[in-house]
Amino acid sequence: MDYRIEKDTMGEVKVPADKYWGAQTERSRNNFKIGPAGSMPKEVVYGFAYLKKAAAYANCELGVLPEEKRNAIAQVCDEILEGKLDAEFPLVIWQTGSGTQSNMNVNEVIANRAQVLAGGKIGEGEPVLKANDDVNKSQSSNDTYPTGMHIACYKSVMEKTIPGVEKLRDTLQTKSEAFKDVVKIGRTHLMDATPLTLGQEFSGYVSQLNHGLKALRNTLEHLSELALGGTAVGTGLNAPKGYDVLVAKYIAEFTGLPFITAENKFEALAAHDAIVESHGALKQLSVSLNKIANDIRMMASGPRSGIGEILIPENEPGSSIMPGKVNPTQCEALTMVAAQVMGNDVAITIGGTQGHYELNVFKPLLAYNFLQSAELIGDACVSFDEHCAKGIEPNYRRIKELVDSSLMLVTALNTKIGYYKAAEIAQTAHRNGTTLKDEAVRLGYVSPEDFDAWVRPEDMV
Amino acid sequence: MDYRIEKDTMGEVKVPADKYWGAQTERSRNNFKIGPAGSMPKEVVYGFAYLKKAAAYANCELGVLPEEKRNAIAQVCDEILEGKLDAEFPLVIWQTGSGTQSNMNVNEVIANRAQVLAGGKIGEGEPVLKANDDVNKSQSSNDTYPTGMHIACYKSVMEKTIPGVEKLRDTLQTKSEAFKDVVKIGRTHLMDATPLTLGQEFSGYVSQLNHGLKALRNTLEHLSELALGGTAVGTGLNAPKGYDVLVAKYIAEFTGLPFITAENKFEALAAHDAIVESHGALKQLSVSLNKIANDIRMMASGPRSGIGEILIPENEPGSSIMPGKVNPTQCEALTMVAAQVMGNDVAITIGGTQGHYELNVFKPLLAYNFLQSAELIGDACVSFDEHCAKGIEPNYRRIKELVDSSLMLVTALNTKIGYYKAAEIAQTAHRNGTTLKDEAVRLGYVSPEDFDAWVRPEDMV
Amino acid sequence: MDYRIEKDTMGEVKVPADKYWGAQTERSRNNFKIGPAGSMPKEVVYGFAYLKKAAAYANCELGVLPEEKRNAIAQVCDEILEGKLDAEFPLVIWQTGSGTQSNMNVNEVIANRAQVLAGGKIGEGEPVLKANDDVNKSQSSNDTYPTGMHIACYKSVMEKTIPGVEKLRDTLQTKSEAFKDVVKIGRTHLMDATPLTLGQEFSGYVSQLNHGLKALRNTLEHLSELALGGTAVGTGLNAPKGYDVLVAKYIAEFTGLPFITAENKFEALAAHDAIVESHGALKQLSVSLNKIANDIRMMASGPRSGIGEILIPENEPGSSIMPGKVNPTQCEALTMVAAQVMGNDVAITIGGTQGHYELNVFKPLLAYNFLQSAELIGDACVSFDEHCAKGIEPNYRRIKELVDSSLMLVTALNTKIGYYKAAEIAQTAHRNGTTLKDEAVRLGYVSPEDFDAWVRPEDMV
Amino acid sequence: MDYRIEKDTMGEVKVPADKYWGAQTERSRNNFKIGPAGSMPKEVVYGFAYLKKAAAYANCELGVLPEEKRNAIAQVCDEILEGKLDAEFPLVIWQTGSGTQSNMNVNEVIANRAQVLAGGKIGEGEPVLKANDDVNKSQSSNDTYPTGMHIACYKSVMEKTIPGVEKLRDTLQTKSEAFKDVVKIGRTHLMDATPLTLGQEFSGYVSQLNHGLKALRNTLEHLSELALGGTAVGTGLNAPKGYDVLVAKYIAEFTGLPFITAENKFEALAAHDAIVESHGALKQLSVSLNKIANDIRMMASGPRSGIGEILIPENEPGSSIMPGKVNPTQCEALTMVAAQVMGNDVAITIGGTQGHYELNVFKPLLAYNFLQSAELIGDACVSFDEHCAKGIEPNYRRIKELVDSSLMLVTALNTKIGYYKAAEIAQTAHRNGTTLKDEAVRLGYVSPEDFDAWVRPEDMV
Repeated sequence: MDYRIEKDTMGEVKVPADKYWGAQTERSRNNFKIGPAGSMPKEVVYGFAYLKKAAAYANCELGVLPEEKRNAIAQVCDEILEGKLDAEFPLVIWQTGSGTQSNMNVNEVIANRAQVLAGGKIGEGEPVLKANDDVNKSQSSNDTYPTGMHIACYKSVMEKTIPGVEKLRDTLQTKSEAFKDVVKIGRTHLMDATPLTLGQEFSGYVSQLNHGLKALRNTLEHLSELALGGTAVGTGLNAPKGYDVLVAKYIAEFTGLPFITAENKFEALAAHDAIVESHGALKQLSVSLNKIANDIRMMASGPRSGIGEILIPENEPGSSIMPGKVNPTQCEALTMVAAQVMGNDVAITIGGTQGHYELNVFKPLLAYNFLQSAELIGDACVSFDEHCAKGIEPNYRRIKELVDSSLMLVTALNTKIGYYKAAEIAQTAHRNGTTLKDEAVRLGYVSPEDFDAWVRPEDMV
Repeated sequence: MDYRIEKDTMGEVKVPADKYWGAQTERSRNNFKIGPAGSMPKEVVYGFAYLKKAAAYANCELGVLPEEKRNAIAQVCDEILEGKLDAEFPLVIWQTGSGTQSNMNVNEVIANRAQVLAGGKIGEGEPVLKANDDVNKSQSSNDTYPTGMHIACYKSVMEKTIPGVEKLRDTLQTKSEAFKDVVKIGRTHLMDATPLTLGQEFSGYVSQLNHGLKALRNTLEHLSELALGGTAVGTGLNAPKGYDVLVAKYIAEFTGLPFITAENKFEALAAHDAIVESHGALKQLSVSLNKIANDIRMMASGPRSGIGEILIPENEPGSSIMPGKVNPTQCEALTMVAAQVMGNDVAITIGGTQGHYELNVFKPLLAYNFLQSAELIGDACVSFDEHCAKGIEPNYRRIKELVDSSLMLVTALNTKIGYYKAAEIAQTAHRNGTTLKDEAVRLGYVSPEDFDAWVRPEDMV
Repeated sequence: MDYRIEKDTMGEVKVPADKYWGAQTERSRNNFKIGPAGSMPKEVVYGFAYLKKAAAYANCELGVLPEEKRNAIAQVCDEILEGKLDAEFPLVIWQTGSGTQSNMNVNEVIANRAQVLAGGKIGEGEPVLKANDDVNKSQSSNDTYPTGMHIACYKSVMEKTIPGVEKLRDTLQTKSEAFKDVVKIGRTHLMDATPLTLGQEFSGYVSQLNHGLKALRNTLEHLSELALGGTAVGTGLNAPKGYDVLVAKYIAEFTGLPFITAENKFEALAAHDAIVESHGALKQLSVSLNKIANDIRMMASGPRSGIGEILIPENEPGSSIMPGKVNPTQCEALTMVAAQVMGNDVAITIGGTQGHYELNVFKPLLAYNFLQSAELIGDACVSFDEHCAKGIEPNYRRIKELVDSSLMLVTALNTKIGYYKAAEIAQTAHRNGTTLKDEAVRLGYVSPEDFDAWVRPEDMV
Repeated sequence: MDYRIEKDTMGEVKVPADKYWGAQTERSRNNFKIGPAGSMPKEVVYGFAYLKKAAAYANCELGVLPEEKRNAIAQVCDEILEGKLDAEFPLVIWQTGSGTQSNMNVNEVIANRAQVLAGGKIGEGEPVLKANDDVNKSQSSNDTYPTGMHIACYKSVMEKTIPGVEKLRDTLQTKSEAFKDVVKIGRTHLMDATPLTLGQEFSGYVSQLNHGLKALRNTLEHLSELALGGTAVGTGLNAPKGYDVLVAKYIAEFTGLPFITAENKFEALAAHDAIVESHGALKQLSVSLNKIANDIRMMASGPRSGIGEILIPENEPGSSIMPGKVNPTQCEALTMVAAQVMGNDVAITIGGTQGHYELNVFKPLLAYNFLQSAELIGDACVSFDEHCAKGIEPNYRRIKELVDSSLMLVTALNTKIGYYKAAEIAQTAHRNGTTLKDEAVRLGYVSPEDFDAWVRPEDMV
């Protein structure tokens, strides 16, 4: 393989000749062979592209960067955002906890790519842009990485998580309305209880997701706060006055999202409670989704020896050995995703606790887990929606059979004959394998006519 | 021991003669010898007292309970809230997951105590109030337990967590202002970095706690939703029309907190995402508190071989073997509390996922963990505040010594001579054990006068 | 309240006149009002009593403590172990993370009680025994607390967890044998699958618990290692030569458990991986128990609209509103315990990571969570065993009805007519609501005689 | 793109013309667009290749598969194991929880590839091998996936985790010996304590890792149990007698690892406690590694304002803004890995609890998290070893300076003058900023000669 020689403050490094990255990226590549190469999420790289461009604009506007350098930086950032340079970011998650070399990776790629766009070659020094002095101007890894992370996470929530959850929520809402008159048995403790409608059951799922979406949106204000402008330790050393507000304004403009500068930059570098907070809401959604998917698979269980109250789409043969078997596979994928998000929440919690003094050095871990959760929830909701929820239909015959035989309809008699006599009726019917009506009449507590008038599932919902 | 015979729908049970509880409480007491007796949190019992009284008022107002019964119920509820009947609630957390017998415990105690207040004796049947038909009127365990749980958790957050955190936050705010001119070395990656003030450092802690308090308050709206009125499965069977809104109004009135009826009762019984959500915010606070306490103990470490930048109160001898040792014990208690809350969050997450159909049966687990976290955070913040935070003082001599010798002051030269030459100065001084000024001048990059003008810690914050 | 004045190296403290504890206990009591008073587990206090007695014997044998002091110490330790002095240990968990004041609490109580036993009064100084110099001789909090913790945890596992799990395991084994010929439908993905026997299903539970018990026992060797002899930082400063081995021998003798001295005392103070390891096994057991309890409640669900394959004991009325309802309450308690143990595992994991240099200061947190888990698992298994598992009976009629109607019996035809034709039969029967035999014959794939010979549930298990 | 038509029991599917996979793989690819394509770990695919080959051998030996089919299967399995067919496994983790389509993916690729090797073309039907009837003979997804998972996890532990941890352990052992005479200050509660040697400190790390390795090895017996032979629900339906033992023997032979058939197949399908157990040990190792990495970064902190007792390699420029800064980046990567493993443990715990009846359907989640942890720990240990641990050197000057000034050397006087007088000396020196000797003599408790003879750090270790 061909190499060129690059230098940094520590000396010379051999770098693949055709790559835009430089010495520091290469050092990190060599020093951290942990997990798959290039695993630093692309969303973080794009977050950096937004902020480098915004920084260039802000620096230019504040008079510390000439317009041609601003334009050179912006041009490469746009290329990064178009996905043209994806192969230039080879670093892993498990590197320095500040993400310093991922920041330098972006700086180096921008400097070298700008050189080439200006007609030069990679590795001729940095006549067009200096990675540290121009591209990184008014910045530090310590404020850029959390800024890129917030941009990536916020965008991921807005573009993946929320639309995915809303899509599923809408379908469940539609089903809730469609099933509003389907009276079925209720179950508490997994045991037969008083009836409700299938639509009511689904309305609970809708309500869970609405609460979850609201909880998630409540966290976005904190997530919209950007560290940029804090530079090395939060003081903003080497950044011009007014830069923090201005650069956040540009980021908001470029992303179309309501980012603002963090009121307190010391927190913004040293702690990532905003990530902890928003991921807490993702975890809450995963709790809701787990409940919903689990209910649906239990209700669809069977076809002959389970509950069988609803029918779900049959998407693929379910067994390599049992012919004709079909399984609630979308429920399984969704509950696996839920378990993953709950695990990720612990990784994020632990990472979040471990800031020391002016810097939390678990940043790539936080970004990785957050982005995985945000994307998985979004994807899994869409998949579940399209391949399961949309196709849910009541199994009317089975639903009616179960509700009619239920002993818990006796509850309707509480207000007529009192809890104790009602219990006696239910217990006797249970013991004898008979119907409530049989026993109610036989025990002399209710006349057949009253029974029929009082015990009507459709009036109990 | 003396017993009396009580009956329920399953038959006779021997109950301690002098206790107000009845058959169902006794069954649960015998069937669940798991963990310490009486461990169902008192806060939950008091939550029940509020809701039983409110239910009696609502039932009366809606014409389904006579005024004298309402008054009898209310009178005992007031006694419970005064703590007079604490010994009458012997049940454990690890019982049925609906808390049914804890609901019945309250019903039975109210019925029997009312009997005695009316001049009767325990165990004469239920001539004054019937536990199931009067005290529990328009209710089910399935809507009362979550209502009692929400009342308990909301109150605990308002009365313990928030005041405790605010108290600590206020002290840290005061310290932040008091220390605003104390220039000290910053540290990133635990390594020397550019300076900031001790006040700035503390301002980050204040900002963390303010964000945490805001996050916690954001969750309270969900927690204010009460299940009461849903009865058995969420349909409100056997409850009069308008009861749910009315009973929430009475609970709000009796507690002085803004409770409302849950818009969707199916969710309110089958899922407890509100608990998951609010505890997520408690967990976030514990992440912040861990960071703060950890920073403070590192800064106070020493006295001679650590960092030693701040002095904290010396509260107790720190060692049974090392004479004269003093330790950051309040930091230790606070970080242990933080770890506990993080563990509790996982228990709550798991419990939250496991609702089946119309009921989540991890309710006592959820209440127990939530209340422990809410109380521990509040208590630990108060303890930390009084015995540590209030007494924090800068160790001025040490702070100055460290900032003056720092090599990272060289960052101030970036904008004057560029990153690379600045790096050379720092590296040379590090290698030679000399000062930045020595090497800056010797290398010919900066004049002594310029150095003194440019490298001023107090200008870098 | 009456007070006396006690002194320690920091000065005077007012202590309740009638209590055996001294200045340091009182300081801790005042400085840590976090959570319930006296919540430091009694098991830890007893662990201390064992080790203080053993230390006295070892010190005496090695010539650094006179026999009369040894006897005085041992006498009070025996009283503590008899539970006579339980009220003398008022400290909380959320104190210093080394448990220093809990060590001093024991030292002070022993010194003062010995004084009284010798005819003196509390608070006359320490003429009989000096808390620091005699009772604590050759010890430090740093090696005593982890030693007491290991004794407490090991004993709890041996006396509570293992017997409880074994009791349940034995019952499940008995059931597995009793049910060995009960052919029932299998379920995978909650969907009907090929048959197995109820005995086989239960044999899986037995195997899980056996593996869990083995895993737990595998961890005990690590847990048997005692820190005692490491004193302040692991070097054994101020302890006589040979003391560590000897004191472990005495602890083993007094407890009847195979304790040994830790080979590496630096680890034994600075890290508590042994606690992490053993609790990992408790967590594994909780995973198994959750699966078992969950299966049983699903199989017992109904009585008319669920699975209903087994009958479990009816222990208490299940609903305050639904007459005659009975619930799987023991399953609920057990799964709540499982969730708690999983949460505790995270608290322990986090506490375990946070050792700094020579000491882990999350010791009381670790002890508290471990002991809660060990006890809860033991108690819950006994409760579940007695009130549920022992009474499980097959619902033969229902089991037969479900297995006979199952479409997955078609799998028996795979080796006769191939997977594809078998699938066609099953799918057609599913679509038409007919039997496998009907469709197998109608499609011309199998003769009625062959069908009866080939498709026999009892041959498929 | 070119397609061909494939069929399964549900009908026709369009499949990319040049791919070996078939209808079921394609269905899964379309139905589960969740997370990155092809993310099912390659190790699991290879695990399948081992077991498919072993099954072919066992089936052949037991007379149910002709030799030419055995050879055809084995030939493709060998190609898979050589990595030649990696591009043929496009499925994701978040699919059906049984991994059924990943099993079918392997079956289809083997059938189609065998066709091509026999001179045929993909998509001509299955004249050489039938995916379900030949390649999957005597198997079900329900026993193959867990078998492939155990093979993958066991191999990963043996090939990555254990060698990585051992490599680091060996280096730490070497350092422990090299530093055995370097007397330094001890620290408990982060506060100055009595001295020990740097070698002793490192010996604690070695002991932690040795205990962790032992704990991990203790779990391997459970992990060596294979489900294969249980087929659909654990009964072994459609598998020949003796097959389970034989197929495990072949897997052991082909992998060189001591696999055996699971004694209880019902557990082996329905629960994955073996994965929970082994991952518990990985979590324990991550706890140890976190402590070690954290200690090392604190000891290396500085260079001028931290602890600075050791020097670690300077691997890359540490800051994009602070010239000359070097950071403990390997410590950061390792502690991020530790946090990830702790999060993964929760995901695995939750997945492990959720088996229903005869099948746990969180299998891909379990495999994914386990393999990530096993690999990350191994990689991170190697990286930390090579780029950090190997280069650790004591900063002798700093170590001596700190130990000499320590006040905790006073502990050596306990046995000479008692704890109280010793405390007075230390407190006075602390207050006055003087030395212990100064105050000991001035207070008249010790003569200068005795002090020098008694207080010798090198005698205290």
